[in-house]
This record gives sequence, structure tokens and C-alpha cells, in this order.
Amino acid sequence: MSNERTEISSLGEFGLIEHLTKNNETKNASTILSVGDDAAVIDHYGKQTVITTDMLVEGIHFDLMYTPLKHLGYKAVIVNLSDVYAMNATPAQITLSIAFSNRFSLEALTEFYDGVYAACERYGVDLVGGDTTSSQKGMIISVTAIGEVSPDMFVKRSTAKNGDLLCVSGFLGGAFLGLTILEREKRIFAETGAQPDLEGQDYIMSRLLKPEARKDIIEFLEEAEIMPTSMIDVSDGLSSEALHLCKQSNLGCIIYEEKIPIHESARQFAYKLEIDPTACALSGGEDYELLFTIAQADYEKIVKNENISVIGYMTNAEEGKHILTKGGNKHELVAQGWNHMKS
Amino acid sequence: MSNERTEISSLGEFGLIEHLTKNNETKNASTILSVGDDAAVIDHYGKQTVITTDMLVEGIHFDLMYTPLKHLGYKAVIVNLSDVYAMNATPAQITLSIAFSNRFSLEALTEFYDGVYAACERYGVDLVGGDTTSSQKGMIISVTAIGEVSPDMFVKRSTAKNGDLLCVSGFLGGAFLGLTILEREKRIFAETGAQPDLEGQDYIMSRLLKPEARKDIIEFLEEAEIMPTSMIDVSDGLSSEALHLCKQSNLGCIIYEEKIPIHESARQFAYKLEIDPTACALSGGEDYELLFTIAQADYEKIVKNENISVIGYMTNAEEGKHILTKGGNKHELVAQGWNHMKS
Repeated sequence: MSNERTEISSLGEFGLIEHLTKNNETKNASTILSVGDDAAVIDHYGKQTVITTDMLVEGIHFDLMYTPLKHLGYKAVIVNLSDVYAMNATPAQITLSIAFSNRFSLEALTEFYDGVYAACERYGVDLVGGDTTSSQKGMIISVTAIGEVSPDMFVKRSTAKNGDLLCVSGFLGGAFLGLTILEREKRIFAETGAQPDLEGQDYIMSRLLKPEARKDIIEFLEEAEIMPTSMIDVSDGLSSEALHLCKQSNLGCIIYEEKIPIHESARQFAYKLEIDPTACALSGGEDYELLFTIAQADYEKIVKNENISVIGYMTNAEEGKHILTKGGNKHELVAQGWNHMKS
Repeated sequence: MSNERTEISSLGEFGLIEHLTKNNETKNASTILSVGDDAAVIDHYGKQTVITTDMLVEGIHFDLMYTPLKHLGYKAVIVNLSDVYAMNATPAQITLSIAFSNRFSLEALTEFYDGVYAACERYGVDLVGGDTTSSQKGMIISVTAIGEVSPDMFVKRSTAKNGDLLCVSGFLGGAFLGLTILEREKRIFAETGAQPDLEGQDYIMSRLLKPEARKDIIEFLEEAEIMPTSMIDVSDGLSSEALHLCKQSNLGCIIYEEKIPIHESARQFAYKLEIDPTACALSGGEDYELLFTIAQADYEKIVKNENISVIGYMTNAEEGKHILTKGGNKHELVAQGWNHMKS
């Protein structure tokens, strides 16, 4: 090892991935799409499969103080299925590896697996393998999902066109607000011993603790014969994901603040905390909705689905990436992400 | 969560997996083989793929005090490729997820990835995806490998027949002895500050630190038109793996101690430490050789390959699982594993 030392924080996660994969060349004809998208694409002699993987680390991605283990197992599967759907593919198999310290009992692990199986059942996915091992500290979960897609029907991030409409499913910002209330109640409990006051906040808590993957949207797009021109799932916040589509498609975009879908329960709770609901949607993350672009010609078809909002459109790269506020101002879109929101 | 508490240690790893997967039913026609073997098998409309995953945890599976990061990256890939070969398949893609604390620099991570890419290059495998994240403590690595196999040519653990010959590739016990010397030198360094004395122990150290997967054996079997009747890779020691083949095929076995292949360097070092070399082979593990059974009719073909040893044969389940010692005694085969050896 050389004696130089570069702090990883100086690159950021995406810079790090770019650095680590810059010399990664594919060797197999069956590898159609490799790193750099929600999932890879592998050709299997006519039919194509996608593969994606995510790692969840206790203390980084989840806090077992307020995350029921069954919900955690469910979510560990969902975050991977969401990546498969974001390729316009149907998940079929997962593998699950888990490391845990000796503070976990068999009953605790069984709860976790109950959640894993519940997600597999709901989404018609098979758990086909995995690994269980010890950890020195905490729980670490690694899930890999494999999905099927008809030849060349997978949708990348890099193929949006100038003028395409930018669409998003469901509502945004709820998961971040769910995290905010749980972190607040945890703090109050630590300071005063007071039991959590979570009344009336079922919606935002379920957005954080029990997210769903948008299988229904992929099915709708197929039925309506809409082929998205690009797609990504919303795990890091709307800003970050929109910027990924722009960068990888070499385009700009305009997003209308008033069009960003925010659930009424989330909006009310944000006001109560004196947080801007739009900021929650832009930078909150973990919503696991689908952000995608479609040709303008598909507009009439898309508006028939009330679970999809058209929130803007793609422009030339030179026009930049902007959000038009309700007040009529134009701001540059920046990816601040979850960590910035928390501090 | 219920209030009962069962210690996971009371089940053992395999008991735990059995418990956690006992209600796991497959739902997709494409899932041909699920948990319980070295890898799963997925049918892709004519061609079949296998998928396998392994997690490596710092402090549990490796010690960075004596494991160069480049070797660790290489080994993290190899242990998964070995599982693919153990299915009689050819690895084609891997995904890699890694969590690490902020004590790791970019240079350190780059070293690790250099090892990953070196293994990919050598085995013709594509790195097609992954995840990088923070950990609270240490480094955790999760690799998933996907391999290709001609329809119904994959080899399971459960299909050995009574009378089949039991064969193993390469040499056994070396990796355990490599670990032993490194642990010893680490202890001496901690106690006295003396620099490690590793002279002349290149062979056993490379068996631990830079194992290879037996691609050559799979290629030989294909060329020689030998279809193994069952196969497994040796990650937990010969005893443990032979018992897996017996249990899953519902058979017994006889192993001849004198036929167990042990490298001369390993044997000499074992004598120096006053350890039984046979015990190292039976319980040491991490050799990543292939243990397989063949029909007796294939004996003439198999003996042409000097990298393969015929070490025994399969019997009826009622006859039990035994080792015949050089002294003519018959002992029951028990799976003590690596941890027992270390203590």
C-alpha cells in the first residue's frame, strides 16, 4: 500500500464509485449493462435479466431503537425490488446475506426473516440463496435482486431526450418526515423518559418503516403501452435523482415546485415542524417512488393514472437544471441529500 | 417480538439456516434450485444461470493486520467463484457491496479493488454492480456471483449414488496452517515486538491469503466427459463437506486417510507445530478445492489428472460416515470445523 492518504469523504459516494470503477471493462457478451445504473443487465440467450444489490448497515441506514425487525426485513427487500422496477423489469429472485452480533436472539432473527418473506410473498419473488455470519458490531444486511425483462425493454438513466416530460409516482418527502418524528421522539425519550407521541403520524411513519416498491406503475406503463425514455428510483431525494437523469442523459431540466406531489399528512407535519415540505421532497430521500421521463406524445395516456404526476420537462444541457418556485423564482437544483437535511 | 430468547449459538450455522428457510417456497418457474446448495439455479429460457453470495466480515473472516487489502479483494471474489464452479458452472458476473469505517483511505480501498479486478481478469468475470457504504466498525464485504451452465448440466450435492468414488482436487489443510503461522507471529509481535518469521512458509501463506478457484478442474471434467454425480467446494474442511454430500444424498462414506492429499510443505510445518496434518485437512477449511463424486466407470478417466485424488467412496447411509486411518482404525467422521481447530 502506498503512503498517500486521500480522505474518502473528499470524493463523495458517487465520486468514489466513479474512481473505483473507472477501469472496469466488461468481458462477457452477455453483460449488456454494467455498473452505473440501478441494476446491471445480463443477456440470457433471448431473455434478459437485471441484477442489483444494496447493503444496509445498522447505525448508518437504520436504527433498531425504532425500527421493528419485521419492517426492516421487509424494507431490505423492497429497496432492491425498487431498483429492479426502475429498470422496467420484474423481480424474480433475491439472495440475502446478513451479519449480526451475539446480541440478536433467534426470535429477533425470525422476526427479521418474517418481514423478508412477507415482501417476497407480496411481490412474487423467490429467496434463492444467501449467507449468515457473525459481526463484531451491529447488523449488516446485503440483498441482491434479479429481475426479468423482455429483450431490450429495460430502461436506463441515460436515454432521456430534450423535451421529454419528467414524471414521478406517488408522493415525496414522507419518509424523511417519518425519520424526523422518530429521531425527535428518540431524543425526547433519552432526555426525559417520555413515551413517544406518534399519534396521527401513521402515514409518514409507514413511509419510512414500510415502504413499497412501485410494481403497479411498471404494470400500468406496460398496459398503457408507454415506454419511459429514462427511469430511476427515488432513494436519495428528487433533486439527486433528477440530476442523475440529467447528467447521464446529458440534458438539463425544469421542475415546477407546485407540481411536486406531497401528501397532505406530510405537508401538515412539515408545517408543524417549520420545515419546507418542498425541501423534504427534494432532499429527503427513501421514498422509493419512480422518477421517469416520457415522450410528450404519451402525455394523454399518462394523466389517466392519478398515481403519476408530471412535474416538469427535460431541456438542453446548456439551459441547466432548475426548479421554478410557486413564487415565480428560478433556483438551481442542487443535490443536498438526506444528511444535509438531518443537520 | 416475543419475549422468548433462544441463543443462536444453540443451533449452529446450518441449524440456523434450516430454521430460517424452512417455510421458504419458490414461486417462479424459472427458479430451478433455491437455498441449500452452493448456489441457486435460475432458468432463462433454455440457458440456465447459477447465483451465489458470500459475506466477509473484518474480525470474523479476516484480520487486516496480516491480510494485504489486494489479497482480500482477490479472495472475496474467489470464494464466490469457487461456489459457482462447485455447481459445474462458469462464472460470468459478480456484484460487490462493501461497507467500511472512516479509518480506510482511498488508497486502501483502491488496493482492495485492484485485487477484485485482478480476480475478475483472471477468471473472465465482469463486475456488474454493487454498493459502497459506511460502517460503524471495520470492513464488511458482500459478493454475489452469477454463472452460466448448459441446461441441466449443473451438479447438486444431493445426487451422489451408493458406490460412487469420492474425489478431491489439489491439496488440503494448507490454508489452516497458513492461518496458524500468521496468528502465531501476530501474537509474538504483540508480546515481544519481534518481526514475523515467515521464511520458507510461502506455500501455506499463499493458500490462506491468495486462494484460487478450480476453474481448471471444471474444464478438465468437461473435456474428459466426466459428469460428477455430486459436488461441493471445500470451505469448511473435508469432514464438513463430505458430511454435507452424505446427508443431502442420504448416503454414508468411507475416506482413506492415506489418500487425503496434503502438500509436503504443509505436512512438514504441521509436524513442526506438533499438529496432525490429517486433522488440518479434515477440519481446517478455506482450501477452496472441489470435493465431488463420480461413477466407478469414470475411474480410468479421472486418474489421468494428477490434480485430482480419489480418497474414498460412498456407501449406504446405514454404514455411516467413516475415516480409515493409516494404522488401520476406523473412526467416525465428525465436522469440527475451523473454530474447533483454533481453540
